[in-house]
Amino acid sequence: MVALIALLAAPPYSPDVAARLIGGALSDGVAYARVAELSDDIGPRLSGSAGAEAAVKWAVQRFREDGVEVRTEPVKVPHWVRGEERAEVLPARGRAGYPLAITALGGSPGTPSGGITAELIEVRSNAEVQALGGKARGKIVFFNHNMSTAGGKTGYGEMSPLRNHGPAEAAKVGAVAALVRSLATASLRDPHTGATTFEDGTPAIPAAAVSVEDAELLHRLLQRGPVQVRLGLGCRTLPDVESANVIADVRGREKADEIVLLGAHLDSWDLAQGATDDAAGVGIVMEAARLIAKLPQHPRRTVRVVLFMNEENGLAGAKGYARAHAAETDRHVAALESDAGAGRPVSIGLRAGEGAQTLLAPWLAPLEPLGAADFGGEGSGADIGPLSAFRVPFVGVQQDVSHYFDYHHSAADTLDKVRPADLAQTAAAVTWVAYALAEMPDPLARPAAPAARAVGATSSRPK
Amino acid sequence: MVALIALLAAPPYSPDVAARLIGGALSDGVAYARVAELSDDIGPRLSGSAGAEAAVKWAVQRFREDGVEVRTEPVKVPHWVRGEERAEVLPARGRAGYPLAITALGGSPGTPSGGITAELIEVRSNAEVQALGGKARGKIVFFNHNMSTAGGKTGYGEMSPLRNHGPAEAAKVGAVAALVRSLATASLRDPHTGATTFEDGTPAIPAAAVSVEDAELLHRLLQRGPVQVRLGLGCRTLPDVESANVIADVRGREKADEIVLLGAHLDSWDLAQGATDDAAGVGIVMEAARLIAKLPQHPRRTVRVVLFMNEENGLAGAKGYARAHAAETDRHVAALESDAGAGRPVSIGLRAGEGAQTLLAPWLAPLEPLGAADFGGEGSGADIGPLSAFRVPFVGVQQDVSHYFDYHHSAADTLDKVRPADLAQTAAAVTWVAYALAEMPDPLARPAAPAARAVGATSSRPK
Repeated sequence: MVALIALLAAPPYSPDVAARLIGGALSDGVAYARVAELSDDIGPRLSGSAGAEAAVKWAVQRFREDGVEVRTEPVKVPHWVRGEERAEVLPARGRAGYPLAITALGGSPGTPSGGITAELIEVRSNAEVQALGGKARGKIVFFNHNMSTAGGKTGYGEMSPLRNHGPAEAAKVGAVAALVRSLATASLRDPHTGATTFEDGTPAIPAAAVSVEDAELLHRLLQRGPVQVRLGLGCRTLPDVESANVIADVRGREKADEIVLLGAHLDSWDLAQGATDDAAGVGIVMEAARLIAKLPQHPRRTVRVVLFMNEENGLAGAKGYARAHAAETDRHVAALESDAGAGRPVSIGLRAGEGAQTLLAPWLAPLEPLGAADFGGEGSGADIGPLSAFRVPFVGVQQDVSHYFDYHHSAADTLDKVRPADLAQTAAAVTWVAYALAEMPDPLARPAAPAARAVGATSSRPK
Repeated sequence: MVALIALLAAPPYSPDVAARLIGGALSDGVAYARVAELSDDIGPRLSGSAGAEAAVKWAVQRFREDGVEVRTEPVKVPHWVRGEERAEVLPARGRAGYPLAITALGGSPGTPSGGITAELIEVRSNAEVQALGGKARGKIVFFNHNMSTAGGKTGYGEMSPLRNHGPAEAAKVGAVAALVRSLATASLRDPHTGATTFEDGTPAIPAAAVSVEDAELLHRLLQRGPVQVRLGLGCRTLPDVESANVIADVRGREKADEIVLLGAHLDSWDLAQGATDDAAGVGIVMEAARLIAKLPQHPRRTVRVVLFMNEENGLAGAKGYARAHAAETDRHVAALESDAGAGRPVSIGLRAGEGAQTLLAPWLAPLEPLGAADFGGEGSGADIGPLSAFRVPFVGVQQDVSHYFDYHHSAADTLDKVRPADLAQTAAAVTWVAYALAEMPDPLARPAAPAARAVGATSSRPK
């Protein structure tokens, strides 16, 4: 009976506001138009590039046009550039040489101009590299894995340490270069890039992603005998560049100093338009701010959109924001990051304290027709990661990522991968959740402890 | 009653032979091993290349090891080479420039060293090009189409004239270059090459395939205003090269001068291993010859395997074979070409005279467990095409091609696309059909007239 009465009770929100926000996002096409502008007009936006700077200017201009208060905050970002890249299996007795489809990992040093020629040694984990010891000296370590055949699960979370940290581990045991099988759930011989990290003071070696097909070839050839590979990478790191986060506030009508943060990232990899990573997220959170700003009455708290710079290769924007806003992190009542592509919404993720789910649940009813009113998964995100240390509650609109890693970080991350209807649904869900978090009388309880993973470490969400 | 008696009657073939041939192909793994050798050891085999010549030598050696009588017949082939290739959309007011994923079409001339820069003009058919007239002068004609969204049907047969003949039509109306949307049913921004033809005495212009994603981008940009593209192709045609068809005969025990021809092609495009186009076909027809040759008693007629050279860009091997064997074409009782990938068998195609189906049907019972005992489609093939003029009956083991055009003619035509079990089933079906055609007491009636398409024209089968 209690439950029935609760169901029949008036909702805690204004149905008119829900209709206006959700209906607006579903019908106005603005989120998609923004994704199209970032993709087709600005294009690749790697940190330090002209595209990244154009994206900052564009975002400021669009927020102004939307009537949303906007500013930039300076961020110094790495400036890594790709250059020419080429690799081949050298001929051996009984077989011809063969070019490999590779692409440098972000942060990799280049090779000497003649390239590096060395024997390949295959491993399946970073632990295996450490176990190799002296056997890796002078070799190219080839990181193989079975992400693309994991079935159902994308496997990205499990496999990404191979790309992020494997080359550094290989360097420590004397390898001269590293090839990492692309982290991909589909392949037409297109390599997938991504960041790799060499800690200061440790050796750095050239590191590239190799396409799934070529990884399978290398594996087959290694079954039969030694394999020599020549790798030539023209990539290099230039001096750091001044860039910026873009921060837009829709001021709360009662508690303007309490902040609901919506994050996405302006930068992308250089191989393509970054349409799903993360122009989609940018379009989604800008749409939330735009629609909420247009309401006759703003919600109680401030909705802040942060378009981070340098998510892909350094998280300088994320770290810079956390540093610059350390004094107000206790007034960040929730943070949501939109960085999982353009798929439709499937559930609401939550990482908060006792009772948060009960508090938020009644507000989610308007998302039922979108199939996204149930809780599932944790809120997370690379850019909001540093806020975990301050026990900011994380909320997430979880999306369908079943095809996301087909093109993630590859040359195929292009606008055609964005289905306008799916994007609009996720924009509607994010807009509504942001409003709810900013309007509900009491904020969500903060989580008992920071997330288990270290600040700045690989998130369980795609990055 | 008649039908029942027919069913209960002894089959027209030896069940022991059927078991030996089909069981052998399904269990011995030899066809796959051959595909793997061609793919991993020899690699790309474009006419005139070292890979193509290595394939000829390899095939001769393997036939000898198989105990099959083999010889080569000289064929002079074109020697087209790719070189560097690059294209980009130039920046325009309000948008940045952007690199395009392209690859030259086989037969294309190169551009001047600085490339060609011109405005793009979009068409959907060769007829539209002809209608453009003077409007195409000085432009790059962009052939767009909807093959990849045709759903279910591959659309290759309908769209391939755009690639084969569109650039020549564009040249005739004064275009300076051509870009053709890749003929593909899936894309991760990988362009698909293929031959384009400029008749002698007509103008030739640089022509490239553009990835599906980039075709969609160009279409979007053209909706908004003029689009300038810079195209640089280093491809060129070198002097013709002496090459060869490889011909292997399993001599018939009674009518050795009557020939059942099994064709496949040794050459491939240069972008990948050509694992499905057409190492798979080569592996299949070599397996048929090998297993039939090992029988205690050869079939009545000769089973001849012809591994054609230059199917992809000229059909020199096909034309040369038809010319060299013109005197015995009336004793070619059937021809079957295996050039549709590595998919499982789905039906038996037939292009023959009155009563052929009735004659062949009782022999197909052993293919029922493979799901390939029914008639469907026509036998055809680019290399056997010239034999149509001589009214040679065409028989085909039709295959599942639902993913074939995902990677056809692209850098992704690699060994991992070949599923050993599917390949073995098609090898079994081809082996059995070849045996049946060579053993049945009376040959199939010849078709009443040559195929409607001209000799050497685009086949309805993939090529």
